[in-house]
Amino acid sequence: MLIVGELINTSRKAVKSAVENRDASFIQRIAREQVEAGAQYVDVNCGTMVFNEAETIEWLVNTIQEAVQVPLCIDSPNPKAIEIGLAAARHGQPMVNSITAERQRYEEILPLVQKYQAKVVALCMDDQGMPETADDRMRIVRNLVQNLTAAGVSEEDIYFDPLVKPVSTGDRFGLEVLDTLRMISTEFPRAHKICGLSNISFGLPNRKILNQAFMIQTMAMGMDAYILDPLDKGMMGFLCASRALLGQDGYCMDYLTAHRKGLYD
Amino acid sequence: MLIVGELINTSRKAVKSAVENRDASFIQRIAREQVEAGAQYVDVNCGTMVFNEAETIEWLVNTIQEAVQVPLCIDSPNPKAIEIGLAAARHGQPMVNSITAERQRYEEILPLVQKYQAKVVALCMDDQGMPETADDRMRIVRNLVQNLTAAGVSEEDIYFDPLVKPVSTGDRFGLEVLDTLRMISTEFPRAHKICGLSNISFGLPNRKILNQAFMIQTMAMGMDAYILDPLDKGMMGFLCASRALLGQDGYCMDYLTAHRKGLYD
Repeated sequence: MLIVGELINTSRKAVKSAVENRDASFIQRIAREQVEAGAQYVDVNCGTMVFNEAETIEWLVNTIQEAVQVPLCIDSPNPKAIEIGLAAARHGQPMVNSITAERQRYEEILPLVQKYQAKVVALCMDDQGMPETADDRMRIVRNLVQNLTAAGVSEEDIYFDPLVKPVSTGDRFGLEVLDTLRMISTEFPRAHKICGLSNISFGLPNRKILNQAFMIQTMAMGMDAYILDPLDKGMMGFLCASRALLGQDGYCMDYLTAHRKGLYD
Repeated sequence: MLIVGELINTSRKAVKSAVENRDASFIQRIAREQVEAGAQYVDVNCGTMVFNEAETIEWLVNTIQEAVQVPLCIDSPNPKAIEIGLAAARHGQPMVNSITAERQRYEEILPLVQKYQAKVVALCMDDQGMPETADDRMRIVRNLVQNLTAAGVSEEDIYFDPLVKPVSTGDRFGLEVLDTLRMISTEFPRAHKICGLSNISFGLPNRKILNQAFMIQTMAMGMDAYILDPLDKGMMGFLCASRALLGQDGYCMDYLTAHRKGLYD
């Protein structure tokens, strides 16, 4: 299970303000807290800073790396910002967030993945837009696996994001993701599966329990990475419980340790 | 989704004491509360009253039926007590808990299922004991489907209980149940799957989150009935959320209604 800490994102007000003020200690504290809580990667997203994103991401990457040793997930719609982030990244194997099967995006991002030998989040999206069914997603997945591996990217370095649509907008939208995960696990067992958890509950009340239940469902279907808030003890407790139930935690040792340390309530 | 309310069980101290004192109003209150909270069946278990179980179950069935109109799940190791319970049951189609593939148990319980045209909980157990793997369970499932349907029991009336063993005693014990559910759903799509939720967490701390996560996992694999405490708002909230996520709740209407009424917070 790979946890990517999502908190360093300028769409969050406090982070935006810290970034604008170049408040390194605020950013470094969030980075440290996430790693201490179990994040193996730290996501870096300053996509809202449209006028100076490249300069900002360089500052963020350097600032975070003074505080923590984990590799970073360089997250931007802007290929130039991704390249600058990757160039500054120096701990471990970085992750690019994200490539898609859209022609332009694919052609802009692939060279960066190759040059920096990065892991890559691959969104199930192409020039026809966001797919609805599992079959539509699998067409994109097959296309991406074929092209990326032909370009020298290892299947193990691909993290497919099935793209989660709110269940409030379609009764089957959760099921289609679960089916997609099962199909990817069968056809491409070496590839990984990643997602965020908040889209699923958009538009519904009491989103917390929907997000938690969706994490547990997707883990049961083979999801093995999440972009989430590792400081959310409820969520991390369920992640820990799910791993134990799925046989991913020998003798439930991590579960017992987490409980003893009071990590997850 | 079928909810069988588990609270009327003399292994619970307060229930034992109420039963011993023939405190009808206490029992009726628990019955009513469970039905109001969403139980479609009420389980009746006085298996601990070994010296007068038959007389006790008759009193319980009559007492409960004065309070609620739902059918009952007659739950006993003792075929005589089951027969007396079934004879007294008068609302809807009763459920027998349980038959197994053990030769003696099967021969004792089958005639009762036939005579009262009952639904039946079928435990994945035979004379070789409790199985460990999904394949071992499926051998028993196939045997039971074949014999029960040949004896005139409809596949729709069979509720397979895969038998949940604590994950603290074997890392794969949760996974084997999930695999069993998937296999039953594929081979016998008209049969149902039922279980209790507390065995899985036996021997581990913070059992609540393990039980909740296991319910969500098993639902994702096709479990469509539980014997549980419907007054447990946390558990019922997750059940409601899971149904919405699995496309079992058109337009999330039940989820929204439950939220509006404050049922599951």
